[in-house]
Amino acid sequence: MNAEIISVGTELLLGAVVNSDTAIVAKALSGLGIDLLHTCVVGDNPQRLKEAVETAIGRSNLLIMTGGLGPTADDLTKETTAAAAGKRLFLHQPSLERIQNYFNEKHVSENQAKQAWLPEGCAVLQNDNGTAPGCAFQAENGCTIIMLPGPPSELAPMLHNYAVPYLAKAQECTIVSHNVHIYGRGEAPVAQMMDDLMDGRNPTLAPYANEGECYLRVTAKAETTEEADRLCRPLIDEIKRRLGNFVYSVDVESLEELVVMLLREQGKTLATAESCTGGLLSKRITDVSGSSAVFHMGVVTYANEAKERLLGVPPEVLETHGAVSPETARAMAEGIVQASGSSLGVGITGIAGPEGGTPEKPVGLIYIALSDGEETWVMKRAPIGRTKSRAWHRHCAASQALDMVRRYLTGLPVVEEHEYEGDKTRRG
Amino acid sequence: MNAEIISVGTELLLGAVVNSDTAIVAKALSGLGIDLLHTCVVGDNPQRLKEAVETAIGRSNLLIMTGGLGPTADDLTKETTAAAAGKRLFLHQPSLERIQNYFNEKHVSENQAKQAWLPEGCAVLQNDNGTAPGCAFQAENGCTIIMLPGPPSELAPMLHNYAVPYLAKAQECTIVSHNVHIYGRGEAPVAQMMDDLMDGRNPTLAPYANEGECYLRVTAKAETTEEADRLCRPLIDEIKRRLGNFVYSVDVESLEELVVMLLREQGKTLATAESCTGGLLSKRITDVSGSSAVFHMGVVTYANEAKERLLGVPPEVLETHGAVSPETARAMAEGIVQASGSSLGVGITGIAGPEGGTPEKPVGLIYIALSDGEETWVMKRAPIGRTKSRAWHRHCAASQALDMVRRYLTGLPVVEEHEYEGDKTRRG
Repeated sequence: MNAEIISVGTELLLGAVVNSDTAIVAKALSGLGIDLLHTCVVGDNPQRLKEAVETAIGRSNLLIMTGGLGPTADDLTKETTAAAAGKRLFLHQPSLERIQNYFNEKHVSENQAKQAWLPEGCAVLQNDNGTAPGCAFQAENGCTIIMLPGPPSELAPMLHNYAVPYLAKAQECTIVSHNVHIYGRGEAPVAQMMDDLMDGRNPTLAPYANEGECYLRVTAKAETTEEADRLCRPLIDEIKRRLGNFVYSVDVESLEELVVMLLREQGKTLATAESCTGGLLSKRITDVSGSSAVFHMGVVTYANEAKERLLGVPPEVLETHGAVSPETARAMAEGIVQASGSSLGVGITGIAGPEGGTPEKPVGLIYIALSDGEETWVMKRAPIGRTKSRAWHRHCAASQALDMVRRYLTGLPVVEEHEYEGDKTRRG
Repeated sequence: MNAEIISVGTELLLGAVVNSDTAIVAKALSGLGIDLLHTCVVGDNPQRLKEAVETAIGRSNLLIMTGGLGPTADDLTKETTAAAAGKRLFLHQPSLERIQNYFNEKHVSENQAKQAWLPEGCAVLQNDNGTAPGCAFQAENGCTIIMLPGPPSELAPMLHNYAVPYLAKAQECTIVSHNVHIYGRGEAPVAQMMDDLMDGRNPTLAPYANEGECYLRVTAKAETTEEADRLCRPLIDEIKRRLGNFVYSVDVESLEELVVMLLREQGKTLATAESCTGGLLSKRITDVSGSSAVFHMGVVTYANEAKERLLGVPPEVLETHGAVSPETARAMAEGIVQASGSSLGVGITGIAGPEGGTPEKPVGLIYIALSDGEETWVMKRAPIGRTKSRAWHRHCAASQALDMVRRYLTGLPVVEEHEYEGDKTRRG
């Protein structure tokens, strides 16, 4: 089944509103295993809307319209679409009564009443969050047409509660997707490694980039959820086999979510001591609801004095090696374990830029340490290639720290052998 | 001039990504006085993309394509569009070198190199935030075609820094925009207050929402920058007159940037003590390059014990009033001034949700305190209206803290009279 979405509204063409309706409907269609091939936006212009509707009815089996069902004069979706589909409008009495109740008035204005006029023979989709009802019907050539209101707060419930059940009834398959999340390998090399797996039709495989990481989406269609799931499994296993420890989760959406989950499972706590990331790491950990069970304390020690006072970093370490050094990162991680009494401590120090770099210590040089109070591991992130933004360096350093915690908690080497820098990275 | 946008990418048809590119480009076109009549989304399918491009070239004077310029095999925008426009691709050596530099390798993969192949005779639009360059050229029938990369972080700067000037040059004028940034009033009421100013053609005025704040973009066209600037001024002054202290800057992009600037100018320092925001405030301050001059230290005291130990919050305050109380916020702000020796200290405590709310202390209740060591101000954020996300509450609380610092540093009342809560908000 081939579907198409037409969103109606001049505000979308002025950029005043981001078209989130399309994404909401697209996801629902994908969940139903319906292929969405076209989406477009048309302003409040009857002629261009008519052309778009006629094109859609001619080439698609399902047309979903969003917006333009409201009471004002420029809300033309129903009139135009019904005419293009060869249907007349009739006054749907129950919808008129809902509108009257909504305004608590027997005689609503002509404009308001206009919303209760619907294409003859349609299934009415009730609006539980506004005045304009939606509808579903078939055009003369068999194309199914569904109209939904524009405001996402009205559209989303109507879609999920009334339109999807209407479509699911006509469909005889379900679709299941799983996301394989990867840290430490970019989208391009991952896509290359998976090149021979990309052509499958069921399941399909698609790579997506995220800031500093990526994921592979595995999607299968089948009669039942279980069957679709069964189709996904071998492909997921093959991806894991090829990528090994770089795969950090299937369907857990972020490193921070995974780390909080693992800490909770293992009854452990984590504390953070940040310099160049400036609170980003603790921010990301506490983005996760329920993180208070595993995260009690973090410090942002931007100045050397704060590193000494809050973390007990020895002044001679700072003097001898500098604030940006593996020694300082180590002392910060060990210091925060001490100060917080947490099971694990992370220390991050580096130069996020764009200012502050030197030939010896360039922008992007960041040391990240993890300590469990017994042992401490230090990793170095050196800038490679093109100049990256401050936000990029900070984000990647925080991700790297989370990945080290992930590796620690899942029994992997925290730092791979070849990433060691002599005795700098292990406790003396 | 009639324009059209084609966004390319199957992920947009799966609803995996909301198409924010279209809104970004639409706004820029509206600022240039170019009418956008059509937008559509096409998946990574050469045949359907070809049809869409041919239709667009046939009916529009300007076609902007977003996405599909990347290194993978399904990135087909350039090949398909160039073919439809009757152009061949050539290897653009400077772009290849940029890609080589980006990866710090002389021999990048064939996939990566593919990005440097561009339509013959095009103007190359440099990508300062990624590998895929954009381009601008004319089809045989005179339709201008511009291609921009899909990721908004690459698209937006390329659009504003290279594509808009290209279009302005073609229109034989320069365009100047100024953003009037507003905190404390939402986009809808601001737009309503400016309703009578919105119809201007030169300068134009457009409202934009940002997370928890908004800004008004004033854009003028003229022969010279100075002349365009002169056209903007009276409108900016009128906006300031109407909005008063809610305007926090013209062209300083964020509260954190402004606060760091003001602190530097005044030789003051700021320290943070965060509970529910979990490091987000210090993260935002240290997003600003050069913030190390004014920000030495922050703490994230998620657990009560950490509040006592690091900030000296008296246990009896925590017992009597609870961790989420004006008294605790005050003690945190005063405690961090003490502990850090900074000129100013902020304390934030509250319930970000979605769990942890009670009838007395609901999700969204957050207290924010600012202390200068002499005097302390406390503000209460109470949840109003529809349920908001954890991220929303955290972001707004951090913004509120920054706005209090801004008000302090610019001599405005830190807390407006009507926002006081009896004696709770002033030091006893």
